[in-house]
Formats: sequence, C-alpha cells, structure tokens
Amino acid sequence: MGKLYVVGIGPGGLEYMTLKAKQVIEDVDIVVGYTKYLEMIKPLLKDKEVFATGMRGEEDRCKKALELAKNKTVAVISTGDSGIYGMAGLILQLQENQEVEVIPGVTASSSAASIIGAPLMHDNCNISLSDLLTPYDLIKKRIKLAAEGDFIISLYNPKSNGRPHYLKEAIETIKEFRGENTPIAVVKHALREGQEVNLYTLGNFTDEKVDMMSIVIIGNTKSFYKGDKFITPRGYNV
Amino acid sequence: MGKLYVVGIGPGGLEYMTLKAKQVIEDVDIVVGYTKYLEMIKPLLKDKEVFATGMRGEEDRCKKALELAKNKTVAVISTGDSGIYGMAGLILQLQENQEVEVIPGVTASSSAASIIGAPLMHDNCNISLSDLLTPYDLIKKRIKLAAEGDFIISLYNPKSNGRPHYLKEAIETIKEFRGENTPIAVVKHALREGQEVNLYTLGNFTDEKVDMMSIVIIGNTKSFYKGDKFITPRGYNV
Repeated sequence: MGKLYVVGIGPGGLEYMTLKAKQVIEDVDIVVGYTKYLEMIKPLLKDKEVFATGMRGEEDRCKKALELAKNKTVAVISTGDSGIYGMAGLILQLQENQEVEVIPGVTASSSAASIIGAPLMHDNCNISLSDLLTPYDLIKKRIKLAAEGDFIISLYNPKSNGRPHYLKEAIETIKEFRGENTPIAVVKHALREGQEVNLYTLGNFTDEKVDMMSIVIIGNTKSFYKGDKFITPRGYNV
Repeated sequence: MGKLYVVGIGPGGLEYMTLKAKQVIEDVDIVVGYTKYLEMIKPLLKDKEVFATGMRGEEDRCKKALELAKNKTVAVISTGDSGIYGMAGLILQLQENQEVEVIPGVTASSSAASIIGAPLMHDNCNISLSDLLTPYDLIKKRIKLAAEGDFIISLYNPKSNGRPHYLKEAIETIKEFRGENTPIAVVKHALREGQEVNLYTLGNFTDEKVDMMSIVIIGNTKSFYKGDKFITPRGYNV
C-alpha cells in the first residue's frame, strides 16, 4: 500500500527543514519535485529514485505523484510550506483513494522575516501578486483592504515580466494609508545560497532588486527600523 | 563573547522543529523559556542549564535572556515561529549590543492547516483576538476588512475568559461576506500531544471547543470540504 507525503522543505537549505520532512524524504521510495528544488536537497537523494519536472506543469506533477503513490511511498516537495501557495491543495483536490499526509514547513515570509528582524510580530497577511490564477481586480482589492486594515503585508511572486507594474501599483495604494517612513524589505533567496536583502521605506522604495523569487515585506504604521533591524512592535503599550 | 538565538520550535513536538533549531538548542550554554515549552523539548535539555519562567512576564524573560547573552550563548524559545506573535520583536527592541539571531519555525496556522487539509492555499491573514496589546476596535476593523477582502483568516488566541464574545462577534462579521457552507476548523494542540480537530461551517459554528490554545481557520468564499479535508483552491481556473 502506497502513501503520498506533501512535504514543505522550508527555505531550501537542509538546515531549515523540519526533522520530520528530512526523515520522510529519506524513507520514501520516490521523491517528486521541480528540478531546482530537488537540487537543494541533493544530499538526501543518494541512491533514491527521483521524478523531476519543470516549473510549469504543476497539475501533471501532482497526477504523477498520486499515480505513483498507489503502490509506493512518495514525497512530493515544495519549498516553504506545502500548504501556503504550495502543492497540498492541488494534490488533495486530485486525490482519489490514496493516503495523503501534509508535512508543513517554514513558509517564505517567515524565512525572509527572520533575516531582517521581526517585521511580522503583529497581524499580517500573505498576498500573491501572480495573476495566473487570480483576477488582478481581486488582487488590487486585497492590497487596498490590507493596507486600510494596517496589516503587515508579505507579497509573494511580487514581479514577473508579464506584469512589471503590479508591485508599483500596490506600493502606491499602500502609501495612501501609511507614512513615508514605513519600512519595506526586499528579500531574495532567504536562508539559502544567493541570499540578498535590500531595505527601503515607502518614501524611497524602488523595485529594481525585486524578481519573482523575492518576498517583499511592508510594515504597518507602527513598524520601524532600529539600525538595520525591521521591527513591528507587538502592541500599543510595548 | 555571548550570543542570543531567538528560536521558534514549531508546534511543540521534536519532529516538526527545524534541524537548525535543534542544533542551536543543543549547542548553547543556556536555554530560556516558558516552563511548558521547555517541557516539550525536554530530551534536548539533558545536563543543560535552563532558565524557566511563567507565561506572563515576557519582558522580564527577554531582559534576562539578553543579560545572560552578554557572555554566554543563549537560546530563548517560542512555540511556532518566533517572529509571528513570538519573542523576536521584544528581544530586538530591548537589544543593546548583544549579537541576536532569529531562527524561524513552522507557525501555528501552518501546523493547524497541515492536519485538516489545505485551507491556506491562497491569500491569507493571521489575526490575534487578544486585546492585551491591541485595542478591540482595531481587531474588529481588521476582521471586517479581511472578511471583505476574502482572505482566509487564521485566528490566534481566539478565546479567553476575559473576552468570551470576541470570537462570536468575529464570526458574525464574517457571515456578512461569506456563505453558510464556508468551512471553519478549530484545531487544538496541532501536531503535539492532545491534538484535537473540530470541523464546522459558518452555518453551524459553535465556539464550545475553542480555548486560548486553539487556532481557528475560516475559509474564503471558494473553500470547501472534500470528505473531511478542508481545501481552498489555488485559483479560479483550477
């Protein structure tokens, strides 16, 4: 009898994976994932059967993993948390009678936050700027309401060639509700090879360092810089 | 020369801790934390100097940890992610010239989500219902805007004796924007001893199983149950 594990490997290095994720990957018969993500966990894949796929074709990857899981143990891997913009949803939608277990991981906004200080200490939201699966009008509406609600905002998939202006428009909207000194961090490859941090404020923000692999974190009206640390205080009397 | 690590241990069991968190706890001179959390990682604390504190007195705990870190290596531990409603913010606010490193962990909403399916697959927010450090008017405003923006909502600290009606009021507000069939999950002690899951919809929700240690996850307008799995589809054309 097979089983499918949907594993979030965290930011990418082996260090920030959970012990459970590591153990599952080591124990299963087959590991399925996007080629670049498999590369990140290469030391765990010695003598292991792997099924590597391209970046697109998520649905095919899920179907293949579910097919294999009929009589083998299979781990399909995502970076970050498999349950936040990861593979868990599609797998469960396509699941027939295979057993499926979701193994959570450290999501990208948590990894990015840990490097720059403590930006996410209060009410916060994750918004993807990708319009592949979401109408842009809904994305814009969410940005506006999150800005109005003074949520700390983590933007996933902040920029791609097809929609270079979305991020700029999001920042303009947030400016209507927050001051010029509000911190903004652009974090690329958090806690893995190639890590890069660029710190801004709403007043001097530029998107030139942002790419599809970045996370952009925008503080709330209480956030501040202490030296190079981006901090959101927990509450009004701290 | 000392150093202070602010470590998120994830949901509480050793399995869902990152390798880095485990290694740091094993390597430091002293571990500081709330008594109950230290209990969870007891196997790592053999022959280790520990400094245990009560639930309140967070500020004293942080000051003590920073004091110790002047000439020793110290880990101060939080459950979940130390950077989301954890200790990282206060530590960095109080930091003088000690070296501080934040080690991220799997946050409570991710742990809870992994047990019940894939509820957090799209834009989502974390809101704490605790008014110890936040005016209730601001909490209510955030609930309303998050509901209007169709965010999946994870409620932290959903209920305590001092404010038994906050959760009910939040649910009433969300009902203005979402249908009766919207899934709601109440998850207690996710991925650790005592784990308990109760599934509802907006139409039949009751708060009787909710306590301060629970996480309450409310789906967006697209979320649904497939058997006992709570799924939010990634986008409109999946």
